[in-house]
Amino acid sequence: MHYEKEETIQIYQGWDEFYAVEVGDKLDFFSRNGRLFDVIFAQQFNRSFLDSMCNLANQIRTLARTKMGAQKLSSLLSHKRAMLYFVQPSTRTFISFLNACHILGMRESEIRGTTTSSEVKGESQEDTIRTFASYVDLIVIRHPEEGFAEKAAWVLNQTDRPVPVINGGSGPDQHPTQALLDIYTLGRSFENIGGLDGKKIAMVGDLKRGRTVRSLSYLMKNYKDITLYFVSPEVFKMKDDIKAFLNKHKIEFYETDDFASVMPKVDAIYMTRIQKEYSETPSNEVDVYPEFHFTKEHLSTIQSHCIIMHPLPRRYEIDVDVDKDPRAVYWQQERNGMWMRTALITHIFGVEDKIAAEFN
Amino acid sequence: MHYEKEETIQIYQGWDEFYAVEVGDKLDFFSRNGRLFDVIFAQQFNRSFLDSMCNLANQIRTLARTKMGAQKLSSLLSHKRAMLYFVQPSTRTFISFLNACHILGMRESEIRGTTTSSEVKGESQEDTIRTFASYVDLIVIRHPEEGFAEKAAWVLNQTDRPVPVINGGSGPDQHPTQALLDIYTLGRSFENIGGLDGKKIAMVGDLKRGRTVRSLSYLMKNYKDITLYFVSPEVFKMKDDIKAFLNKHKIEFYETDDFASVMPKVDAIYMTRIQKEYSETPSNEVDVYPEFHFTKEHLSTIQSHCIIMHPLPRRYEIDVDVDKDPRAVYWQQERNGMWMRTALITHIFGVEDKIAAEFN
Amino acid sequence: MHYEKEETIQIYQGWDEFYAVEVGDKLDFFSRNGRLFDVIFAQQFNRSFLDSMCNLANQIRTLARTKMGAQKLSSLLSHKRAMLYFVQPSTRTFISFLNACHILGMRESEIRGTTTSSEVKGESQEDTIRTFASYVDLIVIRHPEEGFAEKAAWVLNQTDRPVPVINGGSGPDQHPTQALLDIYTLGRSFENIGGLDGKKIAMVGDLKRGRTVRSLSYLMKNYKDITLYFVSPEVFKMKDDIKAFLNKHKIEFYETDDFASVMPKVDAIYMTRIQKEYSETPSNEVDVYPEFHFTKEHLSTIQSHCIIMHPLPRRYEIDVDVDKDPRAVYWQQERNGMWMRTALITHIFGVEDKIAAEFN
Repeated sequence: MHYEKEETIQIYQGWDEFYAVEVGDKLDFFSRNGRLFDVIFAQQFNRSFLDSMCNLANQIRTLARTKMGAQKLSSLLSHKRAMLYFVQPSTRTFISFLNACHILGMRESEIRGTTTSSEVKGESQEDTIRTFASYVDLIVIRHPEEGFAEKAAWVLNQTDRPVPVINGGSGPDQHPTQALLDIYTLGRSFENIGGLDGKKIAMVGDLKRGRTVRSLSYLMKNYKDITLYFVSPEVFKMKDDIKAFLNKHKIEFYETDDFASVMPKVDAIYMTRIQKEYSETPSNEVDVYPEFHFTKEHLSTIQSHCIIMHPLPRRYEIDVDVDKDPRAVYWQQERNGMWMRTALITHIFGVEDKIAAEFN
Repeated sequence: MHYEKEETIQIYQGWDEFYAVEVGDKLDFFSRNGRLFDVIFAQQFNRSFLDSMCNLANQIRTLARTKMGAQKLSSLLSHKRAMLYFVQPSTRTFISFLNACHILGMRESEIRGTTTSSEVKGESQEDTIRTFASYVDLIVIRHPEEGFAEKAAWVLNQTDRPVPVINGGSGPDQHPTQALLDIYTLGRSFENIGGLDGKKIAMVGDLKRGRTVRSLSYLMKNYKDITLYFVSPEVFKMKDDIKAFLNKHKIEFYETDDFASVMPKVDAIYMTRIQKEYSETPSNEVDVYPEFHFTKEHLSTIQSHCIIMHPLPRRYEIDVDVDKDPRAVYWQQERNGMWMRTALITHIFGVEDKIAAEFN
Repeated sequence: MHYEKEETIQIYQGWDEFYAVEVGDKLDFFSRNGRLFDVIFAQQFNRSFLDSMCNLANQIRTLARTKMGAQKLSSLLSHKRAMLYFVQPSTRTFISFLNACHILGMRESEIRGTTTSSEVKGESQEDTIRTFASYVDLIVIRHPEEGFAEKAAWVLNQTDRPVPVINGGSGPDQHPTQALLDIYTLGRSFENIGGLDGKKIAMVGDLKRGRTVRSLSYLMKNYKDITLYFVSPEVFKMKDDIKAFLNKHKIEFYETDDFASVMPKVDAIYMTRIQKEYSETPSNEVDVYPEFHFTKEHLSTIQSHCIIMHPLPRRYEIDVDVDKDPRAVYWQQERNGMWMRTALITHIFGVEDKIAAEFN
């Protein structure tokens, strides 16, 4: 892989100036040679990219089913090394990325939690990132600070050793690989009924603070005739920025607090966690907004092809009794994350043609 | 590997019902296609299994001596991924399993300690286990909760993505891979003197709370004419359940607090840690029950073939001066654990014939 | 690799006796078959070793540039397993060693921080080290205790399973692989101007407590006509032991607190951290000894070939504006550490001829 900067990349004066630029106006900065180099925002994904990633993920999972195929995959990037820098704990996302690296034969270094990197506290964030880049070929970052992954990519792109940065979740807003796996799960589930175009999707729960439903809503602009149903209590309604975005792109949406009335209408129900407002820690009370939970009884009211999704972990939003219904796809959705992250890394390193070649 | 459920497996109504079933009556639940699928109890091991595992472990260590052999081993499961889920810290068992995975070329994910998995606290244990199963092909569990590994296997065996579970120690009682490596060490040491049948074994120390000596006692029913000597202070005598078991299987045993008188009689001395009763943390007092310690002076009183074992870590039970005597096999015993765990994983994935083929 | 003890190795009575022996008089203890077995002291490196290591590191980085070369490297020690035992946190050194192992295809076990090994607290340090040696083929140790790595090597060399020990920094004095990478960086930078012989090097900052500048000073005896400038405040002057050593080996050196006057004279400036005396934690005050900082303005006063080094992490000693100057080599220096550690492990396992063969 060449690390040649696109000539069109404008180098900004400083981080603050760059950070202030509208996301849509700086996407080129994170691409090289016509492909994604850093994956920071869901806005970097267009329809053709999403379709190709879903196709690639399908090819990867097919290959992984045989020992020969799995060994082919693990030879693709056996010469590359990754760093998983997870300052914010996230067992699920961490293990998903880790196993994506393993599938591709990458060796990985881990920084989990802040304690391990205590020694580097004396140095600047920029220096820490440069240090990691000294040793590895890819950095996956999860960080509580909004914009941290973007900053890391910004720093590295100005050095003579840029390495790709993938945002594994930073701050309250961006978690682009979660959006990717959600699209993949929807696409796979609708494979035999015309794909995602024209579908009706309910998003349920805390839509105000829910990072996943926000990202997914943005990505809907890539599909035709989508209808969204935002189902939440009044206090957790979807924020205005998303609604303005949907209006601008003429995406139909409805807001309601009547979950039951929406259930029979939709092709997918995207459940999310809901908890008492302002509570810092997950509540263990079963009775928090039970009218926004999905129970065994609801299975008879939804369409026979309607899938039930959840970004997990779940608490009481979905009865465990629902798990055995084939329309409950959240466990597949979780595993899809691993395949999709594998596909993404494959793309970044430009070796997807070696996978495609297996299917000629 | 197929994940076809044996038709004979009865699915129980719920975990509580299943857990209450006598161990001996539910062993089939953890086997598939005529081989162990989950390794939860030492009761799953019969004589023919123990013999074949010891033989397999020998073959593996022989292969590992050459680069070509080691590379053969590391190609066997290079397409499989393991999760080491060690909620209870245990450096020794952890590193032993980890290197067993490495020997077989597996890639592994680690959860060590409870802090790393703090984020998943909001979810149920069952969901956490299913999540791990989404990403990997084998889960090794160490957990302070009795029955936890069994529960994990029970949960996964009812999903469409069961993955094998190995109990790396859960609760106060079961630690089946420790029992396996103890049998292996005894078998190897007695290789040229007729094997384990007919041998006399002293177990010394805290027999009441000692998980390893309890498991090992159970496994003695697989061997002929074994005599056991339980050597302990009155307060740490072997519990009645084990003694009832031995009586039932007509295994000769003696109880005594006179270590010196037993020493010259036996073929193996299995030392264990002993500390003041009710003390939570390891005592550093050298003078705790010194009459149950093995010292350099004792070397002249034991038989020339009598081996000295210890599950480690040791404190003062065995003088370091004893280490250099060839009959002190505890360091080999520790390393045997790695080979035996490698053999066990090889068995679970059904690739032992590929190892055997190297010896035709 | 054979673990035959050199016949010349004298076994000492005990650790205290061995530890008291002058370093120069016990170096043979850490070598086998004419090559380094354990790497404990910078004093183990002579000129021919240093030259061959620099050459080897160059070959390794050249191979690593292509996928085919990287795969060749990762086949060299794919049958070996390492343990990184880092009781003292050091993200940088840890990741550097980890990726060196990865480059060579080694699988590695990690103990980071003391909490992970809490369970082994009941056992002696010697037993802990022997336990690690049971499972792996190489142990890299970082430990706050002076002499700990040496002790580990001493223990293992007397067992029937010695495995090589590399000192990744133990106590306040020895950090031999840092010294190696510093030499490598100097050598590479002076490649086209006659190498390190005859060069003038300024060492700046806290020379009294600085482990890196002390080790580097020792190694200067391997080069001809070196001149050293020790630039520090009065309270942080280089200690007398180093000055006595330099006098003994007729190495010219000057002491001064006038950094500006030294800058134009030297071929390399080795910056180190400086902080208020007796402060335990890194100070965040920018104004600590600013006259020993290197700023953008100084770039015009140094020679066109004069390199600026720093062991990192840096704080305020070097302006970030200096980073873009091609003479600022500290980021390369950091990455050199990975290549040099790779070279060192290659040497210990005696496979450097397989690398050399690629260049015939």
